[in-house]
Order: sequence, then structure tokens, then C-alpha cells
Amino acid sequence: MPTLYHHPMSTASRFIRLVLSEYGYQPDLAEEQPWEKRRDFLALNPAATLPVFVDDNMRALCGPMVIAEFVDETNGVLKRDRRLLAEDPFQRAEIRRLTEWFLQKMEGDVTRPLVRERIFKLQMTASQGGGAPDSKMLRTSRANIRQHMKYLSWLAGSRTYLAGDRLSYADLAGAAAISVLDYMGEIDWNESPTAKEWYQRIKSRPSFRPLLAERVRGLTPVSHYADLDF
Amino acid sequence: MPTLYHHPMSTASRFIRLVLSEYGYQPDLAEEQPWEKRRDFLALNPAATLPVFVDDNMRALCGPMVIAEFVDETNGVLKRDRRLLAEDPFQRAEIRRLTEWFLQKMEGDVTRPLVRERIFKLQMTASQGGGAPDSKMLRTSRANIRQHMKYLSWLAGSRTYLAGDRLSYADLAGAAAISVLDYMGEIDWNESPTAKEWYQRIKSRPSFRPLLAERVRGLTPVSHYADLDF
Repeated sequence: MPTLYHHPMSTASRFIRLVLSEYGYQPDLAEEQPWEKRRDFLALNPAATLPVFVDDNMRALCGPMVIAEFVDETNGVLKRDRRLLAEDPFQRAEIRRLTEWFLQKMEGDVTRPLVRERIFKLQMTASQGGGAPDSKMLRTSRANIRQHMKYLSWLAGSRTYLAGDRLSYADLAGAAAISVLDYMGEIDWNESPTAKEWYQRIKSRPSFRPLLAERVRGLTPVSHYADLDF
Repeated sequence: MPTLYHHPMSTASRFIRLVLSEYGYQPDLAEEQPWEKRRDFLALNPAATLPVFVDDNMRALCGPMVIAEFVDETNGVLKRDRRLLAEDPFQRAEIRRLTEWFLQKMEGDVTRPLVRERIFKLQMTASQGGGAPDSKMLRTSRANIRQHMKYLSWLAGSRTYLAGDRLSYADLAGAAAISVLDYMGEIDWNESPTAKEWYQRIKSRPSFRPLLAERVRGLTPVSHYADLDF
């Protein structure tokens, strides 16, 4: 059985879980605490990034884009209009740009620091960098949320799905990031009605259900987190 | 004429210049100081990352992986055994993993902080974050070089090219990163003879020549920088 090494509060892991579920894969899930830098995990992926997909022949695919491109190459064409990457190269470029936007830019500006300060540090030992959240880091990351929600609202308002007419990797990456922030109660939905309407649509997909049922130690999600009609 | 927005000391820009040159593209080059966050540049690429490729119809491709995938989709198959991505999906995954290794992991651990401290800060105003290099940052990044050179040597020693038998995106991304560090004199070649042999081969390619002739304000390269036989 293939295995996906993941963490419930990693945007990239959630993104790939959604992609695999949309394409009908059901890998075993192995939770990895990336800050532990386990020797066996580093042997699979020296970059120590999540997620890592290991197939039945013990071949590892490391990181969200490598897995997403592989899945498209081996499954995409057969999916026809349910394909999560487009056929046209410019349309593919736009999907990739936005997917990277959520997995790299928004991750660096907002999601990674907030998850680290509010969740990972609770579970890390002092020598791993654990402890109380850094209030300056929280302030900076929260100040960046507004800009990101504005851009997301603009995309959601001007297109049916974020990268165009069809559901794509961009929507799954965006919704993965938003779901992590929403778990922590970091999003003021009253300010972003257009983004909310889009997120409701993505969140209602069957592929999303397992993510909404998960809980992490030390932090209960906000009350509307798992509501499809929030 | 297509235009490539780039910076001479950006690994990702160098990588794409090599890719385009290997495939026979000769775009106009426009140097961009990414820290200036020019309005017109942000309109092309809201993530403000380099490089950005703008085609004759003013369509923008943003960031190294988006451009590299586009170039492969529109040119790769025709190049046959000069293709810079493989045909086999697992081999493609390995090329992408290593390309991301140099463009993200090594960039974050080593290249970006060293370029920022030693070159960009000389050209930035105080309000942009310019000034003297942060010695702690220099020390940390330099300590990381050794690990990265060990991994590079291992790859170069166990395979003909970094990702396998053929020149690929992985070699061009790796050599782009190494060339930036070598310009600054950050690499002790005596310690890494296997990596040196590999770098000599890549550096000798005609696509590399324009990079070796370039100079940036404020820092002269080390004496062996442009030597093919160093």
C-alpha cells in the first residue's frame, strides 16, 4: 500500500491529500513531525519537507509540486474535464503560478509562521525551538493575512475557480492554506464574502471531509471550522 | 521580442537563462532589482519573484519552475536526447526534486542570505534594509555550505549528471547556484574535487559564457571565477 508522510497542519500535505483523494487514491497516512528530523525520514527526503509519497516499490516522491506533477503525468489525461491541470500550456502556467503562490508565498508570509508559533512550538522541546509564541512574529504574519485575502477575493470574484473555469490544483492549494488558517481562527470571514463563497464550494467537496474531521493536540478549532454553511 | 526580467546574482534567473540558451531562445534581458518592488514589475508578477518571462503577446510566466515547465511542454519533446526533462515520470520527479533542492533548499540555507548580505545590501537604501552585512547571518549561511557541497559531491560522484545519465534542469539549477557562490569566493574547491569536475563540465557549455562575463556593482569576482580550468 502506498504511504503518504504528512502533517495535519501542513498546507502542502493537505493540498496533496486533496489531490490524491480527487483522483481516487487512498494511501496509508503516516504523520510526521518535520521538526524532529527523523533519520529514516531524512533518508526518504533529505530536504525534510512534507509531504512525501512512497509507492509500493518504495520509490519516494518528495514535496507537493513533484507529487502533483507526477500525479498529473500518470493520471491527468485520463481524467478529461476532471483533470486538475489544464491542457493549454499558458493555462497550466497560471495554475502552477497560483499553486506556488499558496504553497510558497502565502506559506512564507502567513501560514508557516502562524502554524509554527501557535501549534508546532507547543509540541517541540526547548532544544527543538519550542516554547511560547513570539508575539512580534504573530503580529507580522497576521498583518499579511489581509493582503492575501484581498488577492484571493479578487481571484474568486473574477473567475469561476481561482485559475479559470475549472477546478484545478490552484483551488486545492488555496483551500488547503485557508483551511489551516481557519482552523486557528485567523480568518475574519465577514471581511471577505467573495472568498468565503469560493471556500464554501471547495470545502463541500467529499475530498475535504477527512481534513475537517481532524484535530491537533493543544488547539481546538474555531466553532465554524467544520461547518459547510458557516 | 520576448523579455526576461532577471537579476545577475539571482540563482533562479541564472537557471532560466541557461535553460533558454540551451534551447536556443535569445530574449531581451531587463535587469530588475527585486527589493525595489516596482509597481510595473508587481503588475507582471504579484509575488515579486525573479525571473519573469514576457512573450511577444505580453503574457507573463512567473518564477523558475513555471517557466521551466512551460519551456519543456512547448519545446522538450522536439529536443529528443537534448531534452532537459526526462520522459519517464519517476526520472522527471528526480529532476524536479533536485532542481527544487537548488532553487529552494540551498537558496534558503545558503545562497539567498549570502547574496543579500554581501551584494544586495550594498545597493539598497537604509529604508529598503540596506547597510552592513549581518555577521551572524554570514556565519550561519557559510556553515551550511559544507553540507550542501557534500551532497553535491555525492550526486556528482555517483551519477554522470546530477539526476542521471543526461544533462537536465537539475545540473543547470545546481550550476546556477554554485556560480553565484563562486563569484563571491564562497566555495573552497580543494575540499570538493568531485563537485569541481562536474562544475567544470557545466561551466564549459556555451550557454554559460554570458554569465561568466557579467559583473555586479560593488563586488569583483574571485580570480578563478571565469576560468574554465580553475
